Amino acid sequence: MNNFGRIFRINIFGESHGPSVGVTIDGCPAGLPLSADDFAGDLSRRRSGRKGTTARTEADVPEFVSGLFEGKTSGAPLTIIFKNRNIRPEDYQNLKRHPRPGHADFVAARKFDGFNDHRGGGHFSGRLTVALTAAGVVAKKLIAPTQVTAKILEVGGRKDIDAAIEKAVSSNDSVGGLIECVATGVPAGLGEPFFDAAESLISHLVFAVPGIKGIEFGSGFAAASMTGSRHNDMIVSPGGTTATNHAGGINGGITNGNDLIFRVAVKPTSSIGKAQKTYNFENDSLDDLVVEGRHDTCFALRLPPVVEAATAIVLADLMLLEQKIKRIYKQP
Amino acid sequence: MNNFGRIFRINIFGESHGPSVGVTIDGCPAGLPLSADDFAGDLSRRRSGRKGTTARTEADVPEFVSGLFEGKTSGAPLTIIFKNRNIRPEDYQNLKRHPRPGHADFVAARKFDGFNDHRGGGHFSGRLTVALTAAGVVAKKLIAPTQVTAKILEVGGRKDIDAAIEKAVSSNDSVGGLIECVATGVPAGLGEPFFDAAESLISHLVFAVPGIKGIEFGSGFAAASMTGSRHNDMIVSPGGTTATNHAGGINGGITNGNDLIFRVAVKPTSSIGKAQKTYNFENDSLDDLVVEGRHDTCFALRLPPVVEAATAIVLADLMLLEQKIKRIYKQP
Amino acid sequence: MNNFGRIFRINIFGESHGPSVGVTIDGCPAGLPLSADDFAGDLSRRRSGRKGTTARTEADVPEFVSGLFEGKTSGAPLTIIFKNRNIRPEDYQNLKRHPRPGHADFVAARKFDGFNDHRGGGHFSGRLTVALTAAGVVAKKLIAPTQVTAKILEVGGRKDIDAAIEKAVSSNDSVGGLIECVATGVPAGLGEPFFDAAESLISHLVFAVPGIKGIEFGSGFAAASMTGSRHNDMIVSPGGTTATNHAGGINGGITNGNDLIFRVAVKPTSSIGKAQKTYNFENDSLDDLVVEGRHDTCFALRLPPVVEAATAIVLADLMLLEQKIKRIYKQP
Amino acid sequence: MNNFGRIFRINIFGESHGPSVGVTIDGCPAGLPLSADDFAGDLSRRRSGRKGTTARTEADVPEFVSGLFEGKTSGAPLTIIFKNRNIRPEDYQNLKRHPRPGHADFVAARKFDGFNDHRGGGHFSGRLTVALTAAGVVAKKLIAPTQVTAKILEVGGRKDIDAAIEKAVSSNDSVGGLIECVATGVPAGLGEPFFDAAESLISHLVFAVPGIKGIEFGSGFAAASMTGSRHNDMIVSPGGTTATNHAGGINGGITNGNDLIFRVAVKPTSSIGKAQKTYNFENDSLDDLVVEGRHDTCFALRLPPVVEAATAIVLADLMLLEQKIKRIYKQP
Repeated sequence: MNNFGRIFRINIFGESHGPSVGVTIDGCPAGLPLSADDFAGDLSRRRSGRKGTTARTEADVPEFVSGLFEGKTSGAPLTIIFKNRNIRPEDYQNLKRHPRPGHADFVAARKFDGFNDHRGGGHFSGRLTVALTAAGVVAKKLIAPTQVTAKILEVGGRKDIDAAIEKAVSSNDSVGGLIECVATGVPAGLGEPFFDAAESLISHLVFAVPGIKGIEFGSGFAAASMTGSRHNDMIVSPGGTTATNHAGGINGGITNGNDLIFRVAVKPTSSIGKAQKTYNFENDSLDDLVVEGRHDTCFALRLPPVVEAATAIVLADLMLLEQKIKRIYKQP
Repeated sequence: MNNFGRIFRINIFGESHGPSVGVTIDGCPAGLPLSADDFAGDLSRRRSGRKGTTARTEADVPEFVSGLFEGKTSGAPLTIIFKNRNIRPEDYQNLKRHPRPGHADFVAARKFDGFNDHRGGGHFSGRLTVALTAAGVVAKKLIAPTQVTAKILEVGGRKDIDAAIEKAVSSNDSVGGLIECVATGVPAGLGEPFFDAAESLISHLVFAVPGIKGIEFGSGFAAASMTGSRHNDMIVSPGGTTATNHAGGINGGITNGNDLIFRVAVKPTSSIGKAQKTYNFENDSLDDLVVEGRHDTCFALRLPPVVEAATAIVLADLMLLEQKIKRIYKQP
Repeated sequence: MNNFGRIFRINIFGESHGPSVGVTIDGCPAGLPLSADDFAGDLSRRRSGRKGTTARTEADVPEFVSGLFEGKTSGAPLTIIFKNRNIRPEDYQNLKRHPRPGHADFVAARKFDGFNDHRGGGHFSGRLTVALTAAGVVAKKLIAPTQVTAKILEVGGRKDIDAAIEKAVSSNDSVGGLIECVATGVPAGLGEPFFDAAESLISHLVFAVPGIKGIEFGSGFAAASMTGSRHNDMIVSPGGTTATNHAGGINGGITNGNDLIFRVAVKPTSSIGKAQKTYNFENDSLDDLVVEGRHDTCFALRLPPVVEAATAIVLADLMLLEQKIKRIYKQP
Repeated sequence: MNNFGRIFRINIFGESHGPSVGVTIDGCPAGLPLSADDFAGDLSRRRSGRKGTTARTEADVPEFVSGLFEGKTSGAPLTIIFKNRNIRPEDYQNLKRHPRPGHADFVAARKFDGFNDHRGGGHFSGRLTVALTAAGVVAKKLIAPTQVTAKILEVGGRKDIDAAIEKAVSSNDSVGGLIECVATGVPAGLGEPFFDAAESLISHLVFAVPGIKGIEFGSGFAAASMTGSRHNDMIVSPGGTTATNHAGGINGGITNGNDLIFRVAVKPTSSIGKAQKTYNFENDSLDDLVVEGRHDTCFALRLPPVVEAATAIVLADLMLLEQKIKRIYKQP
């Protein structure tokens, strides 16, 4: 389902090498001021251009198709489109018979019986995250002064990130990374009992981002090795402040008012210059494949604003549900 | 929202020390044979009784309230209830002013302004997982011959699980654990583009289980340190079999026909016999708390059938959506 | 889908001659006082016993399975069950081969390939409306001082309702009826643009009630014959009061603050004592059928509280969405 | 919520005098051939130009933004946009203080605190039905050979429709109409028990169309005056064919294999040339209003393809759910 959320609902569409990608946000409070400038920062952080990112760059200028009136959200669905300009569909001609290892090429062809747009991954492309980032910009404005910040912790297992990128570039390879996301000023009480735990909703949206393979909240996987006496966070104030934050700001699926903290593991880019074996569906043989097209050495570098967006979107939805945000926007 | 799923939809209700817990399954195909015997195995695996689990045991006999006719599902909503018999609400009298560290006590009281049923965690209790397990039994029958199996990998960071339990028991403490879940015979093509990625849906439901703080698919967090040439799984057959399975059976959010593999981190039980400090909301002081009630030393031990249930429920829903399961049940 | 609503969500289960029928309400604000007494009035209005209603009567005592704690809603899912006591499944033995004309017997058997519970219509029975009525009682308390009142306007096309019933009883036949529902004190601004128009949601839930075949808002079908100059309701106050109410309190799908008014057409009871022809699926012949069992002469008589319930449920959901009702219940 | 459907899901956006209106269809089977030509017929039937319709005409050329690849649906979300070219926002300058009687102007301003796009009704405009019609074209292709046909039965209460229009035009007034919709070849078994009755879903979507104030299935309101012996449809064949069709092809909320028949009442256009009184929100007085802009005398004339669209969309969703349509499109 290309739709997520209960009140603040997002709907994403588009393909990597089609005319555009976009998002429709339904249920955004009316009266929120929005302009292209609001989007510039996060779109720029997500954009390529630095070492370790693809040679394909897109201007990423948001076009407001609906839902914005005289510079403010109108209460009607807000549709934002980003034109794809720098496309090279011819780079993908030979991939119909040679699915790229690690990519969605094979599963997309199986699921849609070959009718999928295979060019650059089509709808499965990381290009779609520009639309998610845009929705995140809107969500971040709504939830202020609650703030969401994600950053790269490691690339290729190293904290010296430049060196890790350098090494991967020089070997025509790619490399994965680790991202940490922190939300501050999160009100206590967000998340719904059982199925709509805060962790459930955040992980749902985070795993929609192509290439993320793990998520952990608070102490996360380390908790599996800990004792209760060490892991339990002692409450030390009437507001619920805890002395430690092993829970990552969430107990029983509900935010507890402390910082919300989680980390995600991003796999290495699947498209690499190095030759790889893959199945040739025409000849029933194993062939060497060198992936053409323009790709990131480490696409994790581009994901912090996307992870922030996913988090802010969930928080906006939960804060509307919990009536911590009004249906008519009020400056915080 | 206490409702999950698109076609095979589950709805959970009940409290730890209320009259019963239960589940309503909507959209289950008609004609599936079901009897209490089908539930005995998984309910017994989830039940306490072994070393490291609580002294509270429940018979867990499923009562079929609706949706079952002459031993088969009728196509109408299937409601199954489990009576709570072994309750001791008096164990929880002093917890209204002393929220247990690590528990949902504080957030529940904040979210519901003190109207929540605080006895044993109320609706936030692990007791609810009996209902999830029951829904999983139905899902497992539906998806056969696809099979889902979870097992404990480690407790307290050790593979010698008995020793880890022993140590925690002897120190009046609790301990966390690591669980691995594998689904075999999963058809390729399950999962929907973008928001309903297979990882999104599985993690959504898995994080609804109290106490789970991390999930990783395939190589998971290790992928963040890997290169693409090592991480990419080479396709070696026309059916899509891969030589390795770093992807955990999912590419681009869609199952690829290989085994689906993920691991979850379970935190240590929050309720421990050892004295802990907690906030006293009556006196505005930090008090010592010794948690009464009966609790697991390591509730991770009881979760494998629950994690299987979450996985099977998602697979049943996706297989119905993809029309790999008929709306009228057919023996596989 | 046996689930309706976005925030105040209801889920219904049960069969006419199974052990019980029930409802789970998810998303009900915490702190709402509820007792069996609250339900007595509407359940009694819905119950049979008067002339024109069935000889089957049920005590209809609500059992609170979950979500109620110390007499108030706890914020967790609220499950209420009504035991079926006065059942006679043997009355329905011959209906497996003889589907009753006008009933769901044939379609249920086709849809569920014969696995449906055919006794008294099973899940398709009007018996399920007791659960809807119960959910309506909760909704009515929430939306107060907004009030919803439905009444019979006509039976068999006559305003002398007793005479119409008399005539149908004396001829072993049944008869339909017309119901009008009015909600007063409805705040302006309920309903969402386009798909969740107030009329869309109310009609969705109203048509879930077995036997309703038409609905019209305000001037309704008469509007098709009117001119704009006559139909347009002139606004005469800053609060939006209109001089007439041809719109039935809804413009563009959004409530306008005037009374919400609609009428529904209820078909005659399908089960009649008079002999009717029906298809015999065993012998491939047209047989005479005299329907056994106990039935209403005019089940429209029992529907006013059910129609009120449907309306109140929609209003509760929309008022929560529009933040006109708090998530923690406050006395109005 | 601007989203409707469970598997075949539509999402609508746009405003009357904004840059464009559009629809995203999620869950459309892959492989369905689509071209602009497919849309020409229904868009032309919906378009103005005939006597009784507005002087504003739009070319209504569908632009495929996503989801279409090499002339066929790709399985990814299908977004279709229609540019608004013939706009005149200046016609609406004085309506901010003078809400048009019968229109959504007042409620939209109240609901969205004046942030709504008021030009021509903004998102509440009948202009949005072009997007619904487009989604209907896709749905109709999917459900073939099932066919949906709607036609005008009456205008202003008269079967001589031209005369009724003539009279309204000559008096600077507008007039309502009655539409009948018939679907043939509908498989038995569509619709879900209780809340997703076929009537519930159809009425939900039909009432989303601006200006519809009533709906009745089969004998509809006439059923309220009938006896059971007359209303019951006798089954006369093993396939479930009935001798009469008072049920309109639906029993117990489930299609019975006979023609699905319903009628809708359309109110007269609210915008009329004749002077009307309305409230002046600036001066707190009752003023005369002559509505500028270009409007239909009888917009019911333009709705048959829209009502067909609503019906086809519901049928497509139910047929996918019931697995009567494959997830990969197959020529019927």
